[in-house]
Amino acid sequence: MMKSLFARFFVACAFASCAVVAVPANAADTRAEIAAFMTQSAHDWNTGNLDAFMHGYEHSPATIYVGAKTIFHGYAAIRGHYASHYGKTMGELSFSDLVVRSLGPDYAVAVAHWHLAMTDGTRPTGIFSLVLHRGPGGWHIIVDHSP
Amino acid sequence: MMKSLFARFFVACAFASCAVVAVPANAADTRAEIAAFMTQSAHDWNTGNLDAFMHGYEHSPATIYVGAKTIFHGYAAIRGHYASHYGKTMGELSFSDLVVRSLGPDYAVAVAHWHLAMTDGTRPTGIFSLVLHRGPGGWHIIVDHSP
Repeated sequence: MMKSLFARFFVACAFASCAVVAVPANAADTRAEIAAFMTQSAHDWNTGNLDAFMHGYEHSPATIYVGAKTIFHGYAAIRGHYASHYGKTMGELSFSDLVVRSLGPDYAVAVAHWHLAMTDGTRPTGIFSLVLHRGPGGWHIIVDHSP
Repeated sequence: MMKSLFARFFVACAFASCAVVAVPANAADTRAEIAAFMTQSAHDWNTGNLDAFMHGYEHSPATIYVGAKTIFHGYAAIRGHYASHYGKTMGELSFSDLVVRSLGPDYAVAVAHWHLAMTDGTRPTGIFSLVLHRGPGGWHIIVDHSP
């Protein structure tokens, strides 16, 4: 009896493992997860918490930020760019027209408009694209193109 | 004897199928393939062959081109943008500093500088990022961010 239970448990686990590996990510789930990620990013930005905002980027030397004229390679360089550029005048960030496309189960690309309401009254806006990777800690940006 | 040969052939084919499915894409191969793709794109551009150049894009309504201020959705809109913008004065296109990152076996992201030598002597330049998909017909662009 015990042996049979163990056998059944083993077979069930084997099938469960297969299911986890084989079932493709649901595109609607990926879109919802990345929309939530963007909302959190905007919140972290708007509370002036650059450390929390930077958690959105994969902590890797391979992470890339593409600005208008410069490519920043690696998490440290990206953080330095944000810190030197915005400091304590980061403005109010919002997004619109988010489009998300799944790239297999663990990657996605997101395109949207960004809007900043600065304290000096200016309203810079633009379009960004993000490539995101879903790792053990959830979704993180691996390429941010925000010219 | 024949049966044994067939059996061996069957087993060999089964293993070969597994190998094709299970072996992850080689990052160096992906980089070389996308570098070749970029060289072909520049050639098609420089010979003024917009139809051939457009073969680089996935022929799908989901393909996206992100310009400086506008997002073009779908292959037809992207082709129209190129046709209206450049017409017969497309200039000489080249790329530099190509960075390629594999996103699983069938997707990749490429970042590089583009350079155009126009017949009027101007030399516009910029940075682009591409998300590419490897389908039955090879690599095709699914998101082109060229502000």
